[in-house]
Amino acid sequence: MSVMELSKGLDTVWVVLTAAMILLMEGGFALLEAGFVRQKNAVSIIMKVFVDIAFGALVYYAFGFAIMYGSDAGGWIGTNGFMLKGDLSFIHLNISIDTYWLFQSAFAIAVISIVSGAVAERINFRAYILLTIVMTGLIYPLAGHWIWSVNGWIHRMGMIDFAGSAVIHALGGFSALAAAKFIGPRIGKFSKDGRPNIVPPSNLPLASVGTFILWFGWFGFNAGSTLSATNSSIGHIAVTTMLSAASGGAACILFTMMRYKKADPPMVINGSLAGLVSITAGCAYVSDEAAILIGASAGIAMVLVTELLERRQIDDPVGAFAVHGVSGSIGTIAVGLFALPGAAGRIGSSHYGLFYGGGWTLLGIQLFGLLVVAVWGFLLVWAALWLINRVVPVRVSQDEELVGLDVGIHGVPAYSQEHDFIDLEQLKNK
Amino acid sequence: MSVMELSKGLDTVWVVLTAAMILLMEGGFALLEAGFVRQKNAVSIIMKVFVDIAFGALVYYAFGFAIMYGSDAGGWIGTNGFMLKGDLSFIHLNISIDTYWLFQSAFAIAVISIVSGAVAERINFRAYILLTIVMTGLIYPLAGHWIWSVNGWIHRMGMIDFAGSAVIHALGGFSALAAAKFIGPRIGKFSKDGRPNIVPPSNLPLASVGTFILWFGWFGFNAGSTLSATNSSIGHIAVTTMLSAASGGAACILFTMMRYKKADPPMVINGSLAGLVSITAGCAYVSDEAAILIGASAGIAMVLVTELLERRQIDDPVGAFAVHGVSGSIGTIAVGLFALPGAAGRIGSSHYGLFYGGGWTLLGIQLFGLLVVAVWGFLLVWAALWLINRVVPVRVSQDEELVGLDVGIHGVPAYSQEHDFIDLEQLKNK
Amino acid sequence: MSVMELSKGLDTVWVVLTAAMILLMEGGFALLEAGFVRQKNAVSIIMKVFVDIAFGALVYYAFGFAIMYGSDAGGWIGTNGFMLKGDLSFIHLNISIDTYWLFQSAFAIAVISIVSGAVAERINFRAYILLTIVMTGLIYPLAGHWIWSVNGWIHRMGMIDFAGSAVIHALGGFSALAAAKFIGPRIGKFSKDGRPNIVPPSNLPLASVGTFILWFGWFGFNAGSTLSATNSSIGHIAVTTMLSAASGGAACILFTMMRYKKADPPMVINGSLAGLVSITAGCAYVSDEAAILIGASAGIAMVLVTELLERRQIDDPVGAFAVHGVSGSIGTIAVGLFALPGAAGRIGSSHYGLFYGGGWTLLGIQLFGLLVVAVWGFLLVWAALWLINRVVPVRVSQDEELVGLDVGIHGVPAYSQEHDFIDLEQLKNK
Repeated sequence: MSVMELSKGLDTVWVVLTAAMILLMEGGFALLEAGFVRQKNAVSIIMKVFVDIAFGALVYYAFGFAIMYGSDAGGWIGTNGFMLKGDLSFIHLNISIDTYWLFQSAFAIAVISIVSGAVAERINFRAYILLTIVMTGLIYPLAGHWIWSVNGWIHRMGMIDFAGSAVIHALGGFSALAAAKFIGPRIGKFSKDGRPNIVPPSNLPLASVGTFILWFGWFGFNAGSTLSATNSSIGHIAVTTMLSAASGGAACILFTMMRYKKADPPMVINGSLAGLVSITAGCAYVSDEAAILIGASAGIAMVLVTELLERRQIDDPVGAFAVHGVSGSIGTIAVGLFALPGAAGRIGSSHYGLFYGGGWTLLGIQLFGLLVVAVWGFLLVWAALWLINRVVPVRVSQDEELVGLDVGIHGVPAYSQEHDFIDLEQLKNK
Repeated sequence: MSVMELSKGLDTVWVVLTAAMILLMEGGFALLEAGFVRQKNAVSIIMKVFVDIAFGALVYYAFGFAIMYGSDAGGWIGTNGFMLKGDLSFIHLNISIDTYWLFQSAFAIAVISIVSGAVAERINFRAYILLTIVMTGLIYPLAGHWIWSVNGWIHRMGMIDFAGSAVIHALGGFSALAAAKFIGPRIGKFSKDGRPNIVPPSNLPLASVGTFILWFGWFGFNAGSTLSATNSSIGHIAVTTMLSAASGGAACILFTMMRYKKADPPMVINGSLAGLVSITAGCAYVSDEAAILIGASAGIAMVLVTELLERRQIDDPVGAFAVHGVSGSIGTIAVGLFALPGAAGRIGSSHYGLFYGGGWTLLGIQLFGLLVVAVWGFLLVWAALWLINRVVPVRVSQDEELVGLDVGIHGVPAYSQEHDFIDLEQLKNK
Repeated sequence: MSVMELSKGLDTVWVVLTAAMILLMEGGFALLEAGFVRQKNAVSIIMKVFVDIAFGALVYYAFGFAIMYGSDAGGWIGTNGFMLKGDLSFIHLNISIDTYWLFQSAFAIAVISIVSGAVAERINFRAYILLTIVMTGLIYPLAGHWIWSVNGWIHRMGMIDFAGSAVIHALGGFSALAAAKFIGPRIGKFSKDGRPNIVPPSNLPLASVGTFILWFGWFGFNAGSTLSATNSSIGHIAVTTMLSAASGGAACILFTMMRYKKADPPMVINGSLAGLVSITAGCAYVSDEAAILIGASAGIAMVLVTELLERRQIDDPVGAFAVHGVSGSIGTIAVGLFALPGAAGRIGSSHYGLFYGGGWTLLGIQLFGLLVVAVWGFLLVWAALWLINRVVPVRVSQDEELVGLDVGIHGVPAYSQEHDFIDLEQLKNK
């Protein structure tokens, strides 16, 4: 046993275990979303998570990964690595390419899962499958190439997005916003005079547990992004991740107690997630104190943006934009403010945060990169849905929506209190 | 700190972490089964999972492990290692024997958990405890010895079953089939003319999340089976596991959309699991493309066999045979077709798959080994239940079944919407 | 890559992964407690878990950790390390201080989570936030300093508490007892003549899955407490943890079948947890057989103490004292009886268990240390609640309690079967 073999083995199990943790986050998304939507649509949203993970993995294997990390063409697109074939030796890692793919596939699946929440309770299932294919095969991989591939045009500018506040969450969040606007609000969500109506979440315990599973997975998401177990930042990454999440949750507890006179459970759930999303870009580069500040800001912003969307009559049932789009943006920008000088050297960048005397350059780059992914995600998802709508209606029929997508589309309710068997023949004869 | 110590430490934490992941799968089984059965039996099925893990671990500690991995007698049975005592130095591993036991105990517990689903809603609790003891102490360890012990008679033939499509899943699945047939269908499942009646699953969100937890645990199940963190196959194993699961899920989404005009949630759940089960034998030895093919085949076969069992009036409430028996068989056979030539060397076998020019030998061995475990599992479980039935009735009374096992056997419902306390004294006076 | 770097990397990922597993236990606590309480309080108990993790992490970062592990003053209190600043180089670890903090913060959060169950369904939310701050910032860190800090006065006596049967669980359990007594029973829990009334748990499947998640996390809790992946005890720790949990569960299955004529699901759930709690002190130092004995004793004692508390009219809705207080005590004492001679050397102690000829010394120390944390936890929590009660009422109003804390305090029910939106304006006009 040589040190090299040991090192390779250690890095491999680190990446495989953290990839598994990120994939478990799909269970977290499923619980969160099924808990937040109305009972009549709980299965349908979970079926979308199955589409994310099943189709997402296959598409990202077939061509998404190649477009994102294949041999670069002009800083815009990868050109080989389809089905992990071809010469990818220019990717210098201590793990195998397929191990790398596994980790990255979990990210691609997360992006589309963010979008799924925004179109809950009204998107056509076939249309959603097509959107998943476009998202995990094209829209995300291209943006990912620009920022994360070593030759990506935004990457070369010096943009810093450690585990994807921009590439994953802001992109996913603005894509979700586009999808929510394109498909329109759920029937009855807004009264004719524009007032928002509410429905209590169908199952808050499920949604809460989804959050704890997501929180667990996030340690894999952020710390695993080192792709190497001997990266000296791992401990610090895990700590900033924890502090930002705690801060986002605590801020929302206190803020909603002041604003609504009660600690508001759905807001506290989303506040913790906002803390997690917002630290994702800077987890390796900012101080503990900055992490606390970033998490709290993201939590409070999430509450305010949730209110804003309601006023603007945009219907985002689980708060995908407020959590991922807004917190992802805050996290991306925060790097330009809080990135430590010491950290900059570690990432081969000469820039660091404004608040530490690093000047405006990094902040400008972060804002520019954020703007690009936000606009890209919004426009491309809008275009994709417009095109899909030519082939298959993006929205379910009014009848299906009213009866609920579980029974309407999938033929089975989420919860059944039946104690006896249903004789189908007798039902028909009635 | 020497390289040897580091290597031992790394392997130990790898095996402990993956063992913990496999044990978490019991939580996945509990959710899956509680979600699939009728509400009145949700607790009773979870209590069986507690029996699996509690009695299973103790029995496998007391004698199951010894029979499976103890010093070989004639290729048929292990003879020492009871309570992990005795000279087990012939087991050459870089981890301690008790660490090895922990990992293996998680497998033993999984086998009986597969059976639990098939007898849901009607098995007597005491009989189930006895069945668990026989299964984890005798039936599984013996079959396991034959195929996985270095001196096992089927192992010496050259059978390949990396993480247990045959030893765990086909054995568990055929045992489940025997149990389902022995105990007979639930009251009302089939009409007098033989038509199957249906009942919607009581809680599909729970069942779905169970699936995601099982999926997570499977990375431990398959990649952990290397028992060494420096095994160069770990990345590949994790990738084939992911692709086969995704493929099984995607295939069932598309296949049920064609066959039933709707993506059928229970089938999609079981399709993902079928993908996971079917890649378990070959995960280290087959290509990515083969993994996708194997997963898809298993998913579709699962749907067809589920229908077949209904027609044959065999009542398997959660689809244990269709998922584990059938997919386990497909996975075992697939090794004979798809095992790569390069892989064969790694496992000290001169055989490889038919489709790569390896001839019929390996396929024949796989078929033979599969036949042995299938027949063994079916017959021994049948015999065990027949014997148990002499001591304690295997099936609950009709009254208990109609009222449900939760209240009937365990005295408490799964779900209660009571908001106030129940005064037992007042109840009695009424 | 040097061996030192590898070793540091390996230890870091081991501690980060096990810390994440312990933090996931908060999801387990949330499920367990939400499943055990009445439906009208399911969200409110989960909100307390959010308080635990959000406020607990921030408080333990700001000053709890410093008080517990900072530079010692007189064996009583740590004096630096606030916000992880200051010279902590006297802590000799192969991992960074902030990685160490992350792991320890998960423990602090667990302590207050234990208490949350005992005050479920009736504590005021604001009071609970204050209690969390005092608990994670002061009460637990001080006791922790005494027993776990190298200069702690009880530590220097030679007390052994590997992963915290005393420091975490007995402290948490006796704190829970004080809180339950201080706040008094839920309205209607006891009839006027003192007879206890019962209410079935609202969601046993959730509670069960919480248990499996806690079980999974416990491998991190106990084995991770080595803080080093090359510690030769890791495998043994994981095995004793598994055996004790299985034994606690199996003992409660059999014991309740004898005592109540039925395997009682809530008791089996808590019996498994009792097994886990009781092995936490001795997991590294006792034999497998002792682990089985300890787990079974704890499981049965849990049943008996649960009954005793009911008779004494102490209302502990989820059994926090019976599980954590009693099993933690049993586990702490068991070390004095069962600690192996070989183990003693490993921990730099000359003492070992009475049953192996180690004499009464260790047993005496264990009993003394246990007494200290039990009295400390009980008195300080009582005093804290008394003080908090001056500022904000510790107990909710009668109306809030009757309507339930979910709607009464947090304005939203846990479960909603609403299929349509609620027009607030129309509601008001009615």
